[in-house]
Amino acid sequence: MKLTKEQNQEIKDLQSLNNSTKRVTAPKLEEILYEALPILDHGFVRVIDYMGNDNSIVQAARVSYGKGTKKVNTDAGLIKYLMRHWHSTPFEMCEIKYHVKLPIFIARQWIRHRTANVNEYSARYSILDKEFYLPSKENLAAQSASNRQGRGEIIDGNEAEKVLGLLKNDAERTYKNYEEMLNERYDGSVIEEGKAGLARELARMNLTLNTYTQWYWKTDLLNLMNFLRLRADHHAQYEIRAYADVMLNTLKRWVPTAYDAFMDYRVGGTEVSSKGKEVIKKLIKGEKVSIDETNLSKREWNELMQTFNLEDKIV
Amino acid sequence: MKLTKEQNQEIKDLQSLNNSTKRVTAPKLEEILYEALPILDHGFVRVIDYMGNDNSIVQAARVSYGKGTKKVNTDAGLIKYLMRHWHSTPFEMCEIKYHVKLPIFIARQWIRHRTANVNEYSARYSILDKEFYLPSKENLAAQSASNRQGRGEIIDGNEAEKVLGLLKNDAERTYKNYEEMLNERYDGSVIEEGKAGLARELARMNLTLNTYTQWYWKTDLLNLMNFLRLRADHHAQYEIRAYADVMLNTLKRWVPTAYDAFMDYRVGGTEVSSKGKEVIKKLIKGEKVSIDETNLSKREWNELMQTFNLEDKIV
Amino acid sequence: MKLTKEQNQEIKDLQSLNNSTKRVTAPKLEEILYEALPILDHGFVRVIDYMGNDNSIVQAARVSYGKGTKKVNTDAGLIKYLMRHWHSTPFEMCEIKYHVKLPIFIARQWIRHRTANVNEYSARYSILDKEFYLPSKENLAAQSASNRQGRGEIIDGNEAEKVLGLLKNDAERTYKNYEEMLNERYDGSVIEEGKAGLARELARMNLTLNTYTQWYWKTDLLNLMNFLRLRADHHAQYEIRAYADVMLNTLKRWVPTAYDAFMDYRVGGTEVSSKGKEVIKKLIKGEKVSIDETNLSKREWNELMQTFNLEDKIV
Amino acid sequence: MKLTKEQNQEIKDLQSLNNSTKRVTAPKLEEILYEALPILDHGFVRVIDYMGNDNSIVQAARVSYGKGTKKVNTDAGLIKYLMRHWHSTPFEMCEIKYHVKLPIFIARQWIRHRTANVNEYSARYSILDKEFYLPSKENLAAQSASNRQGRGEIIDGNEAEKVLGLLKNDAERTYKNYEEMLNERYDGSVIEEGKAGLARELARMNLTLNTYTQWYWKTDLLNLMNFLRLRADHHAQYEIRAYADVMLNTLKRWVPTAYDAFMDYRVGGTEVSSKGKEVIKKLIKGEKVSIDETNLSKREWNELMQTFNLEDKIV
Repeated sequence: MKLTKEQNQEIKDLQSLNNSTKRVTAPKLEEILYEALPILDHGFVRVIDYMGNDNSIVQAARVSYGKGTKKVNTDAGLIKYLMRHWHSTPFEMCEIKYHVKLPIFIARQWIRHRTANVNEYSARYSILDKEFYLPSKENLAAQSASNRQGRGEIIDGNEAEKVLGLLKNDAERTYKNYEEMLNERYDGSVIEEGKAGLARELARMNLTLNTYTQWYWKTDLLNLMNFLRLRADHHAQYEIRAYADVMLNTLKRWVPTAYDAFMDYRVGGTEVSSKGKEVIKKLIKGEKVSIDETNLSKREWNELMQTFNLEDKIV
Repeated sequence: MKLTKEQNQEIKDLQSLNNSTKRVTAPKLEEILYEALPILDHGFVRVIDYMGNDNSIVQAARVSYGKGTKKVNTDAGLIKYLMRHWHSTPFEMCEIKYHVKLPIFIARQWIRHRTANVNEYSARYSILDKEFYLPSKENLAAQSASNRQGRGEIIDGNEAEKVLGLLKNDAERTYKNYEEMLNERYDGSVIEEGKAGLARELARMNLTLNTYTQWYWKTDLLNLMNFLRLRADHHAQYEIRAYADVMLNTLKRWVPTAYDAFMDYRVGGTEVSSKGKEVIKKLIKGEKVSIDETNLSKREWNELMQTFNLEDKIV
Repeated sequence: MKLTKEQNQEIKDLQSLNNSTKRVTAPKLEEILYEALPILDHGFVRVIDYMGNDNSIVQAARVSYGKGTKKVNTDAGLIKYLMRHWHSTPFEMCEIKYHVKLPIFIARQWIRHRTANVNEYSARYSILDKEFYLPSKENLAAQSASNRQGRGEIIDGNEAEKVLGLLKNDAERTYKNYEEMLNERYDGSVIEEGKAGLARELARMNLTLNTYTQWYWKTDLLNLMNFLRLRADHHAQYEIRAYADVMLNTLKRWVPTAYDAFMDYRVGGTEVSSKGKEVIKKLIKGEKVSIDETNLSKREWNELMQTFNLEDKIV
Repeated sequence: MKLTKEQNQEIKDLQSLNNSTKRVTAPKLEEILYEALPILDHGFVRVIDYMGNDNSIVQAARVSYGKGTKKVNTDAGLIKYLMRHWHSTPFEMCEIKYHVKLPIFIARQWIRHRTANVNEYSARYSILDKEFYLPSKENLAAQSASNRQGRGEIIDGNEAEKVLGLLKNDAERTYKNYEEMLNERYDGSVIEEGKAGLARELARMNLTLNTYTQWYWKTDLLNLMNFLRLRADHHAQYEIRAYADVMLNTLKRWVPTAYDAFMDYRVGGTEVSSKGKEVIKKLIKGEKVSIDETNLSKREWNELMQTFNLEDKIV
């Protein structure tokens, strides 16, 4: 990722702001406010603004439960309790806003999280930057044989070179033709004086899905955690996970207590079905259980055994 | 409205906060942060937190439209343009959080605005305060004869005394019986030692709808304006309008430029239907128009005439 | 619950409809369409309309995953897979609409589920029915000593009589005074000719929270399951659980396959935190574990032991 | 647009369904249920399911307003009243589900309407069809000189040929290389036996934004009208307008009365700002008004003059 001189200057200017406020603050998050945290080859995430901190969650819970919260005597205890029992509304009392630069095919996954506010760079109005995502070699993987949506073995050597070559050439050529149709280059210079260029809203259709776009994305803490839970998961595509991982870090700086509870109950936790519970109960009693006496499918059985480190029982 | 000593002290403490932040601020709003702005007899609105200011709207729009926004050369011009053309997403980039104390029957109207985050005081956990709304005399009105949902003539004299007496007595008695069933008074003292009180989640059903409740209510600027547009309107019930009016004031302190555009295009503006447009066109040409040659209902015709100060044409 | 003659006739008329449609249907749900299923003393739930059935979930999933779904060869297997892995969007493809009559204090809990469409009877426009909820004796419980939001021991004998007497008297008197202020009785008859009645939007504030209201409530299958998961749970207040239980039944008639998966993975399932998982792993290995060597709070430990029927380990 | 034999057969089979239901129906919509209505070169819209009709809106309104609706004595009158006064919730009581095939760059605009349920074909799981959008010549327009997001003059002759050639070649080549990387052709045949293909979730990034995707899209009537109001507008990009126009037709078949009110009050109507109202009032009185004595910007003034056919006053 490289920023222009102007962008770097703008970030520096913003970071030198020193405003006075009566609002609560999150000092660790302030440290990295506005900073462009690099992701993939040209992407980034920047925290642009936020509202509230761990204390805002506690405060909202205490309004709800009134004197009822007296028994839980520490703030951390209360936040853990809320997380464990899915008391979700106090987490909605905090809000955060990111500026994100990301490839379009990842933006298309991301936007499916509807409970957020978005302002995306419009290619109807303006020309998209000449930047597209090319995976690094260690992320070039074959289609998984066992999982319809996953990656399998790494592709390397000549094969990898060939793939990267195709991606690079196609992105460059389609971008060049995009400029051609617009009669305007990415830097704003005109290609052929006096000639009309194709409307931007049409020309953009020639770009490939690895072209970078950018947006402001604002959401509340509850929905941010829902996003991170799904997107920092190992089932998620590597490219969006790369964003989620960096954002997990910003979460930790913003609301460290909620972060701990989130990692324990959501990210590191697991769900066990009604039938799965029966299996676990028997195993704890020291009984032998075989898949045949349960109503679990093979896939479910194996997922359950894996969750509790019983790899020898996988069938 | 009277606050307890503890509440007054808490507000003072919060207002003396002087944190340093790199975030943008809204200085005029900071001035009244945490303050309890009185509404009705026991209600209030407090701004508890906020994110963004006028500049955040502009910044989001400039991300969306890129170089496309250069032509609109002032921030105020851009905000007006966005408001006029219903470019709503930049307004979603600002967020505000209120603490509100309000009668339950008003809370039931308010909650219908779904795009907001809410933490309400829970009467399952805790005992509700002994406070209920009694209208002031000038707000005691008869049912409107012409409008099914409106108020008509003021009720006064003996009649007013009688109504207020009924409201007061019923609220007080039902509250007293609420305490009786709980075996606990509003201040937490036990009524009869050693006796079990009815569960709070049950006892609360005895309270009247003018009992006060309170909540934290957080929303973005777009949805706040949608709320205010409907609730500061003269069709809205007086009691909720009282809240909307005070909140309009906080809007002005927070985002003065957006406030001006909002007042011009939304609050002070009007909609004209396709058929209504034809009537106006003829009137501008100096033609005579009578309701019979239009497809407007009597009610529509009159609303249109009123909008453009043509009271003499009302039929 | 008693319906008026007119209401009974209307239901009969609707139930005798026999329209022809190319849409998919849910025959078991058609059997009870429009029927008023009684709940509490005056409440009911009626299924008024629906869209889609189990097959619509499968169809939506197959559009999403294309040939990727071939491996899961039965519809039930696919629905179970979707439920287990929180692939939520296919469940949003079904929609249902209920007509519900319920006490206001329950309506206030219910409305907190925001992802639904609601049309509630308006007490600004019309007079509310003279019906209020009085718990049956076996549901009159004392405040729980251990749980701030729960019920404890049953209250009975004289104490119960007294509570029911207070509730009944207060509801009746406040309703009578409501009529008095309106100068109109619940059946529409005028009390004193020639006298102006108080505006309905004001008079309603005198009613108690156990007064019945009614609404149309429409939601998609995913959000219905979210609602039922929380409200059919034993932590939910009895009065809303009574509604959820009846609605679970309508769910079973509507989408029997999704219902089975829902009961197995959501209602009957459990969540285990990261720390809890470590405890279970040790127990399966036959190791002794005491609470001290974990980072679990006492409450968490006990919840975990209870989930897996290890009551002897509760501390 | 051409469908495969299998798709045509499936549509025929669905259209021959003749189920019996007690639900209300929309006979005119039933006539075209499941039919693929062609749009652009390869796109289509199909109505797959629906819930409710005009009568459902009326019914919901009558529940809300109770006896308050008696005065409005016809259903059409009531629907018009609701539309005029933005009583939006009764329109949420109807639901519709579409199957849409559309170019990705249009899908990206469309998805910004968040209040809808979506299941999109996943290019992580499956291979995208070999179909991409090429504008017809009469839709090839130059960038507008006056409007940053609009189209200007038609591009034709050699210039048009050249643009179409670039779009076609680039789409074909990037698709061919997509197959190459996958080591699999669009029809599922393997290119080189024994060689691992790149993961689908990666290979897709090479496709251009005019590639077609498809989804199920479900929304309620209110949000459908919000969508159509914006997307059938002349400010909308031609390609999404083509979809909106066809969908307007399905709206008319579904809820003809609501459609009429929508066309009159929303689509054909206009908004006038507070300042604009003052200008119109003066014009009706026969006074001369010049832009200088108003606070309107030049753009606002011209928009207002155009709305009321006062082209001679444009400055």
